[in-house]
Amino acid sequence: MSYSEFIKCFPKYNFLKPLFDKNLIPYKTWDKGEVICRCNRELDSLYFFTSGRGRAYRGLNNGKEVIYCLYSGKEIAGDVEFLIDTGTTCNIVSSGNLSGFRVKKSIIDEKIYNQLFNLLAKEVAYKFVTNSSSTTIKLGYKLEERVAYYVLYEYVDSVYLMEELAGLLGTTYRHLSRVFKKFNDEELLRLDNKKITILNRRELERLSSVIKEEFYD
Amino acid sequence: MSYSEFIKCFPKYNFLKPLFDKNLIPYKTWDKGEVICRCNRELDSLYFFTSGRGRAYRGLNNGKEVIYCLYSGKEIAGDVEFLIDTGTTCNIVSSGNLSGFRVKKSIIDEKIYNQLFNLLAKEVAYKFVTNSSSTTIKLGYKLEERVAYYVLYEYVDSVYLMEELAGLLGTTYRHLSRVFKKFNDEELLRLDNKKITILNRRELERLSSVIKEEFYD
Repeated sequence: MSYSEFIKCFPKYNFLKPLFDKNLIPYKTWDKGEVICRCNRELDSLYFFTSGRGRAYRGLNNGKEVIYCLYSGKEIAGDVEFLIDTGTTCNIVSSGNLSGFRVKKSIIDEKIYNQLFNLLAKEVAYKFVTNSSSTTIKLGYKLEERVAYYVLYEYVDSVYLMEELAGLLGTTYRHLSRVFKKFNDEELLRLDNKKITILNRRELERLSSVIKEEFYD
Repeated sequence: MSYSEFIKCFPKYNFLKPLFDKNLIPYKTWDKGEVICRCNRELDSLYFFTSGRGRAYRGLNNGKEVIYCLYSGKEIAGDVEFLIDTGTTCNIVSSGNLSGFRVKKSIIDEKIYNQLFNLLAKEVAYKFVTNSSSTTIKLGYKLEERVAYYVLYEYVDSVYLMEELAGLLGTTYRHLSRVFKKFNDEELLRLDNKKITILNRRELERLSSVIKEEFYD
């Protein structure tokens, strides 16, 4: 994988080209279960993921896992830790063929640092807004409304495990299964071998409209 | 209120002194209930709150309110909107004598802009980390554990309304009241005229240790 692949995903970061020219930015694929970083450690790199699947999560000492983010396309990790001197706030683990470029902080000179800082500041601000909305949805709406919204507007393919989806929606596997069973019994959708088929779009729209109108219209 | 008051609260922002010298940064107190900004609007200013109480929240179309932040000391608002071109993501309302300085974006020249951008980027990154932890606590731990943690380590005085506290802890007034009643009946604490007195510190420590060990030790 090369600079041309990188720039297709992250066009604003073209000022990193000199580092690619010197072969300083390696490309890597992490197999399912491989750890990219662990919580509460120092992070010496930025990661520019381009494909595959991964998850950023925190495992708690009561056994629960809270999912911060599911990666399934281009995504930057390590941006917060780049801006401020803090340990990593989550684990990042590949869920299957997570692939991307690793930029070690030690190879960045001052000019590139300043340009990176400006762009990453905006990335973090956007993530802040997105996180606020997603937390608000988790805390403010019923699980059935959240599931209906996800199925209609965010579901693309059977990429997530049910456990991951539960984390993303701010619930547990058990509660999520119950909602899918209910939706299945009411013939709103069919869940078959991890693949979701929508059967009654109108009713799902009605259920999720309270979220859609508030956040996405 | 003057520059000397401002700089006591925000020492890193001393490069704003020329604007104070020209009387371009007004100081204001907002009475209880007064609105500083509303959700989904353009924001033409940064706010540097120095004292009083306020809350940043989002009112949802299902009637619920999700509290993002309770202000009770120095705090900056408008930082995310300064970094990226986005509408406000919440309402900010005074809960009583919220006071601070307002810096209009239009009076900021390029040199000050760059310095502000750098500092605000770090503020937002810190808020991102804090928000992630606080969301994780809300989603990952039982309400009793959260209340015990709050009472022991974050409660200072009877500054918040019970409704505000419920929002801060990610629950409803009804659920929170039930926990306080239970703690009261079990003689863990006494809630009298909005003032909390701790009666059984050891048991509250036991309840909240799961949060403290994970996030604050």
